[in-house]
Amino acid sequence: MLIQDTLERARRLYPQKQAVIDGDRRFSYAELGARVDRLAGALAASGLQPGARIGVLMQNRCEYTETYFAAERVGAVLVPLNQRLAPLELAFILNDAQATHLVIDAVHLPLYQAFCGETTTLQSVLVVDGERDGDALSSYESELSASDPLAAPLRDWQPDDVVQLYYTSGTTGRPKGVMLTQANVIANALNGIMVMHFDDRDIWVHGTPMFHLADAWSSWTITWVGGTHVYLREFTPVGYLRALAEHRVTVSLLVPTMINGIVNEPSAPDFDTSALRLLTFGASPMPVDRLRAAMSVFPHVTFMQLYGMTETAPFATALRYDDDIVNGPHGRRLASCGREIAGVSVRVVDESGRDVMPGDVGEIVMRGPNVMKGYWQQPEVTSDTLRDGWVHSGDMATVDGEGYIFIVDRRKDMIITGGENVYSTEVEDAIYQHPAVLEAAVIGVPDPYWGERVHGVVVLKEGAQLTADELATFCRRSIAGYKIPRSVEFVPDLPKTGSGKIQKAAIRERYWREHEAATGRRV
Amino acid sequence: MLIQDTLERARRLYPQKQAVIDGDRRFSYAELGARVDRLAGALAASGLQPGARIGVLMQNRCEYTETYFAAERVGAVLVPLNQRLAPLELAFILNDAQATHLVIDAVHLPLYQAFCGETTTLQSVLVVDGERDGDALSSYESELSASDPLAAPLRDWQPDDVVQLYYTSGTTGRPKGVMLTQANVIANALNGIMVMHFDDRDIWVHGTPMFHLADAWSSWTITWVGGTHVYLREFTPVGYLRALAEHRVTVSLLVPTMINGIVNEPSAPDFDTSALRLLTFGASPMPVDRLRAAMSVFPHVTFMQLYGMTETAPFATALRYDDDIVNGPHGRRLASCGREIAGVSVRVVDESGRDVMPGDVGEIVMRGPNVMKGYWQQPEVTSDTLRDGWVHSGDMATVDGEGYIFIVDRRKDMIITGGENVYSTEVEDAIYQHPAVLEAAVIGVPDPYWGERVHGVVVLKEGAQLTADELATFCRRSIAGYKIPRSVEFVPDLPKTGSGKIQKAAIRERYWREHEAATGRRV
Repeated sequence: MLIQDTLERARRLYPQKQAVIDGDRRFSYAELGARVDRLAGALAASGLQPGARIGVLMQNRCEYTETYFAAERVGAVLVPLNQRLAPLELAFILNDAQATHLVIDAVHLPLYQAFCGETTTLQSVLVVDGERDGDALSSYESELSASDPLAAPLRDWQPDDVVQLYYTSGTTGRPKGVMLTQANVIANALNGIMVMHFDDRDIWVHGTPMFHLADAWSSWTITWVGGTHVYLREFTPVGYLRALAEHRVTVSLLVPTMINGIVNEPSAPDFDTSALRLLTFGASPMPVDRLRAAMSVFPHVTFMQLYGMTETAPFATALRYDDDIVNGPHGRRLASCGREIAGVSVRVVDESGRDVMPGDVGEIVMRGPNVMKGYWQQPEVTSDTLRDGWVHSGDMATVDGEGYIFIVDRRKDMIITGGENVYSTEVEDAIYQHPAVLEAAVIGVPDPYWGERVHGVVVLKEGAQLTADELATFCRRSIAGYKIPRSVEFVPDLPKTGSGKIQKAAIRERYWREHEAATGRRV
Repeated sequence: MLIQDTLERARRLYPQKQAVIDGDRRFSYAELGARVDRLAGALAASGLQPGARIGVLMQNRCEYTETYFAAERVGAVLVPLNQRLAPLELAFILNDAQATHLVIDAVHLPLYQAFCGETTTLQSVLVVDGERDGDALSSYESELSASDPLAAPLRDWQPDDVVQLYYTSGTTGRPKGVMLTQANVIANALNGIMVMHFDDRDIWVHGTPMFHLADAWSSWTITWVGGTHVYLREFTPVGYLRALAEHRVTVSLLVPTMINGIVNEPSAPDFDTSALRLLTFGASPMPVDRLRAAMSVFPHVTFMQLYGMTETAPFATALRYDDDIVNGPHGRRLASCGREIAGVSVRVVDESGRDVMPGDVGEIVMRGPNVMKGYWQQPEVTSDTLRDGWVHSGDMATVDGEGYIFIVDRRKDMIITGGENVYSTEVEDAIYQHPAVLEAAVIGVPDPYWGERVHGVVVLKEGAQLTADELATFCRRSIAGYKIPRSVEFVPDLPKTGSGKIQKAAIRERYWREHEAATGRRV
């Protein structure tokens, strides 16, 4: 089973069915398949070689899906690029991957102009919705129309061949390319179907950025079952709600900050979202308070949290918010990221690799056919992360007697203050409960007395007022004294990653840099 | 991934959850797991060796599931036995498999006494609910209680190792043992989860006999997702309906004759079957008329047909009876057995192995990780059936432009009369539409004029009256003249296989034997 087989199946079984809804465009699977054939022909004609790398820098659109399938048809390795990176970071990734080809949309032409001088291996650039620009750039649509369709794949893919390269920013150092094989991608596609119960009645909205695996996996899963793809250029609460209503979307995945945006959108109840059956979220934990608010906006919808990493392609655990969790005797599980899904092994281990006892904190490790082959040209980091087939997440967690995993913190996010360990998510949960709070991040900052001090960075809702003392008093109700932020900063917004996750590393970095400057030593 | 991993997962994630409902017995997954540990210990102590074969001859009961898991723990190959076979047939299978061990229930002790003198390799027999009988037989429950639990598997199973041997009667010759590997069994378990959308909320009733793969697959699928097993010793319409109501069964698989029995059960509307979400059926096609009747008994339930063979472990195609099929524009698909499920390739080919054109008749062939390794010690039959990884079903079908497959007949069931091909299911469908008909089989019988004559064998509903002429007149409305049975026999019942399928080979055999006796030559 290969990625291309998912599209071939849809072409054979669902030729006339709606595959694509993208703005005013509608393509059946027969039409989508024919476009992929022609795009593959155009890419091959432009010199793309089996095994070569091809970057993609686009908003969510049908051409993203087409490029995923066409690149694989030619035999190339796809490198999706985060649109929010700086020009030099993008050039670094393209050079690191030695990408020969790039597909971009017109929106990103200015960004391309800013980094193209720094790239060393690019030979050909296709622009979606763009104009021809001398010899260097050619138009996606006109190349596609003019090309000879590529009927047969140019490469005899093996399951263990690397087919996609996802660069993860990581908390330190340069981005690393996560190598996913055909087998990894297919294993996760199966897991997605099993966990989310997809079939050909499903309509999926590409709501989070397609360069991130949190959405990308759906490209072949939805195709495999013969479902329908709906594309949102960028996420806005109203745009998303409108797509749900207009296209009768049945399943979706968002990140918690997006759900938070919907919860705070006053017009949300005006949209008919009755077709939605399942709303999943991942990438970061969701404060319980916000989860309950979201459930009241979508009372007929099943909510599910998914946990995983790019390195696990990405799903590893799932938590379905059944009634016994939301309203019943198992309310404690609201704070869990769920249990291993069928087909993936997930354990929580101590530093010697032994399973921790229920309640003790250890590191989440994962194994299965979905686990990456390694980091591109980084054998040392690979062997540090992948040990005996187990990928080490860096996430610290506890596990209960029934396998429910509770992330207490990213390993690097643990705050040690006055000898006590404080897990920042616990503090954030407390802060989020205050009605004036829109978003919050808690970090450890250097402190001459405590070593590290618990520090809150908070965004208030529009028009809301709150002081640090009031917030501390409020938190005192729910968490121990040593966990309460000793300092709070109110800011207009928080830095986020391309997928909408709050970038705690960036917030933390600023404080530690100042500390280094003041003390002259690295902490 | 191995069969044992499905149980280990359930023990780890669902230790306190109800695993088993069997009469008055209730076992959690912790309890079921502990019983399997002890049974495995008892089997190992009784001399069962890794790689050896162990037969099972039981009605549906929890011990069947336990034996499936315990045999695999020891490393043995399970051989489920059809309870309706004659003593000499059972002895043939046990000798052919060289089985050293046997587990039976007390109900089958008389049958055991009738064949045990003919077996040549049996060393040990465990009897469920039985008494010790000298040295030869020992009691399942007391051996289980007294044994040392087997904590670790005795065999390092590889995915390609044969783990189960299912004897299929076939239409001619001696039964053949279908060799299923660990990988086959796990592939089908995944397919089952994907197609039927199982999760830990599901409650499954073992309604068809567990010796047949039509039910056996559920043993590890339901365990894998942490669902609940309900056992019915034998199928009766009322017993089945009571189980649905009492245990809130959510998913079930029956054969059409069983569904027919429920449709004709006057008390059916008295049972609360509201928990049932999906009713699947397989093993033979269901007359459209009966399907509609069944839908009116279970109006809230999704109906799904599954097609496959023991050789495909077993699922290959599925048809969900959506509204557009039942009431809408795609009514023609009511006669289809569906389309290939994700993960299995299904084609309809001509004699040279090329895909037939839509509408042309060819043979159904199937390929995928679920396809058997071959027939036990039958290399020639294996190479005849398995070619380039494609299992040749012997079923003749057409396929439409969207992959819907229409079985026109078992290859051996095609009737050639006066130079015209008649597919017996088409004639049966016509007969079933008559309100007086309970069951019907159509076969070709020797005829001096036509070569073969279309012959109907019909069971009428209690108290109903019908003549052959009236039936012919009735059929004339819906099928061509040459397809109408030229002779009809009314009988009190039809011979059935152990799984409840009408045994057309047995009906046909009688006529051809008489013909041979009369003409002195084999036809």
